[in-house]
Amino acid sequence: MNQKIQLTPSGRIRKSPYYEATLRCGVQAFTVYNHMLMPTSYAGPEADYWNLVNNVTMWDVACERQVEISGSDAYRFVEYITPRDLSSLQVGQGKYAFIADENGGIINDPIILRLEEQRFWLSIADSDVLLWTRGLACGLGWDVQIHEPDVSPLAIQGPNNLPLMNDLFGDWVNDLKYFFFKETKLEGIPLIVQRSGWSKQGGFELYLMDGTQGDKLWEAVMSAGKKYDIKPATPNNIERIESGLFSWGNDMGLENNPLELPLGRFCQLDKSAEYLSREALQRINSEGVKNKVVGLVLGGDALIGGCESTWQIFSDNKWCGKLTSVAHSPRLNSNIAFATVSSQLSEIGTKLTVATPWGSRNATVSSIPFI
Amino acid sequence: MNQKIQLTPSGRIRKSPYYEATLRCGVQAFTVYNHMLMPTSYAGPEADYWNLVNNVTMWDVACERQVEISGSDAYRFVEYITPRDLSSLQVGQGKYAFIADENGGIINDPIILRLEEQRFWLSIADSDVLLWTRGLACGLGWDVQIHEPDVSPLAIQGPNNLPLMNDLFGDWVNDLKYFFFKETKLEGIPLIVQRSGWSKQGGFELYLMDGTQGDKLWEAVMSAGKKYDIKPATPNNIERIESGLFSWGNDMGLENNPLELPLGRFCQLDKSAEYLSREALQRINSEGVKNKVVGLVLGGDALIGGCESTWQIFSDNKWCGKLTSVAHSPRLNSNIAFATVSSQLSEIGTKLTVATPWGSRNATVSSIPFI
Repeated sequence: MNQKIQLTPSGRIRKSPYYEATLRCGVQAFTVYNHMLMPTSYAGPEADYWNLVNNVTMWDVACERQVEISGSDAYRFVEYITPRDLSSLQVGQGKYAFIADENGGIINDPIILRLEEQRFWLSIADSDVLLWTRGLACGLGWDVQIHEPDVSPLAIQGPNNLPLMNDLFGDWVNDLKYFFFKETKLEGIPLIVQRSGWSKQGGFELYLMDGTQGDKLWEAVMSAGKKYDIKPATPNNIERIESGLFSWGNDMGLENNPLELPLGRFCQLDKSAEYLSREALQRINSEGVKNKVVGLVLGGDALIGGCESTWQIFSDNKWCGKLTSVAHSPRLNSNIAFATVSSQLSEIGTKLTVATPWGSRNATVSSIPFI
Repeated sequence: MNQKIQLTPSGRIRKSPYYEATLRCGVQAFTVYNHMLMPTSYAGPEADYWNLVNNVTMWDVACERQVEISGSDAYRFVEYITPRDLSSLQVGQGKYAFIADENGGIINDPIILRLEEQRFWLSIADSDVLLWTRGLACGLGWDVQIHEPDVSPLAIQGPNNLPLMNDLFGDWVNDLKYFFFKETKLEGIPLIVQRSGWSKQGGFELYLMDGTQGDKLWEAVMSAGKKYDIKPATPNNIERIESGLFSWGNDMGLENNPLELPLGRFCQLDKSAEYLSREALQRINSEGVKNKVVGLVLGGDALIGGCESTWQIFSDNKWCGKLTSVAHSPRLNSNIAFATVSSQLSEIGTKLTVATPWGSRNATVSSIPFI
């Protein structure tokens, strides 16, 4: 359980523009995400967590690759691949959206940024959206060009992010609303600055637009952050579960549809634009969703270290779903999790049993977010 | 250089059905391939190499996932995505083929297995071919169904593979021609047995068709292999470079086209079936290919451990390409490599300079395979 796994370097597994900087900062472990190394730990998951929730941290999330879509059919295409209504998406704004196929299956759940009327970035989770969108656009014969630009996000996350951001960029960042962004430069380094990030501790993402300047950007932020005691950190499994942030590949995937998640506000099934998953999702919606993604609180000792694969869930000794993410929350002093269970067992307060590698645990369906 | 990288386990990174067995056998390191852990070392790259080239080994290559394509347009679709002429591909036969997009870019280079007239598997390298083919088929509106079946190959590779295969399956395997296959069972475990494998040492791949029986299959092969001194091993970087086997993601990718590789026999640009990359590849072919993938022999001390990323190549101090894979061959006692260089510098015998992390090395363009 949770044994150490050594990764053999390979040209197939790309290095981030911040890779050398993260080594200097003492990175302890990585994951592979969009064919790229992403740091997962510096001082350890719990120490990193406290740095994130108490102060301010910076993360190498270059692996959050961008899929750029442009051309005269770009807007039409971006509407086509999501059940979210994007008609109000302004240039300079981003929105979280599900990308769904003709069966309603979730291809990915990116932030969609509108850079120009007919130019978008999908800031993606861990699946080859580039390949799916290129295949689809080619088959449709629409006028869109799709490629992966040289863009590598660096996140600044934590409650004390604003003073640092002000020192770096000035006061205008205070006026950026959530998911809005602006193009700028820092010491000549071309960036897009967006109020965003995969935590609920507040912060920004700096989309570096020149991979050769990764080290320079990292050091500029680190240097300005010294007076705020900034620490290197990473997307944190404990914090993101507390905050109700789902992970594609863990809590959802191609076999799920967006209606299974408690994120109905991101689906407008009757939107006016044509979209690929309309028929499937409207049918699922009228027939009733079979499974739902829920929060769980598990009893017993602290479950440290997450789960390496799914754990099975039972109701009255009958299989009814799977746990997909788990952490022990230090602030709640409880074990919290995401799970996919049969819809009839998804009501808050439902009692279930989870088969963990350390034996059975009682679990209760809970509201999300946990904090 | 070549530092140890610790990988954090995640549900996003799947475990092979042979995972527990490989741990019992002392696996030392892994890579991530098609969102799955793949063993890369047991006794070390060179000891594993000698076991492979001198005797017989078994490999967990479950990460070589299958993309199954069926439906009334399946054959038409499979012809459509490759410049290889598949009109002579029989049921029960496999062929190596490039999957190429509308620009000629290489999406992947699988073995295509024909299971039925209208049912195929693409046995893929490390990219989400599932997503690209599903996107394309959806956009085209053709009658094909595409999914990833529960299939996990186990390879038996090495010059002494046949006595072991005979003990396991009988004499009929001797008559299987290269890339031909047959469905069978071993102790009740459903398999497809193909003469195949990512080495030139000879052998077979056992396509396990029930992921719950991975441990049972592993132990059955290991047990029968004892009298032949079978060893656990992995796809081996030294052997595959010696043998001229290219790696998608290292030696080729979306930015390359099939005409850059010395594998013209796998492209029939005038084939009668319609195919997506025809226009692009015929244009590239008539204009002349700009870059070529070549073999290199590098002087100086043994370059142990491969390259973690590409090394730049120069001719008369002018940049002319990149080295993409490198190994020290114990049998040749020389440093051998694959590189992409300008076509005019691709002739055998051309002298080049490679900037390695340990300084410049003289290099000579050489024929492939090296052995």
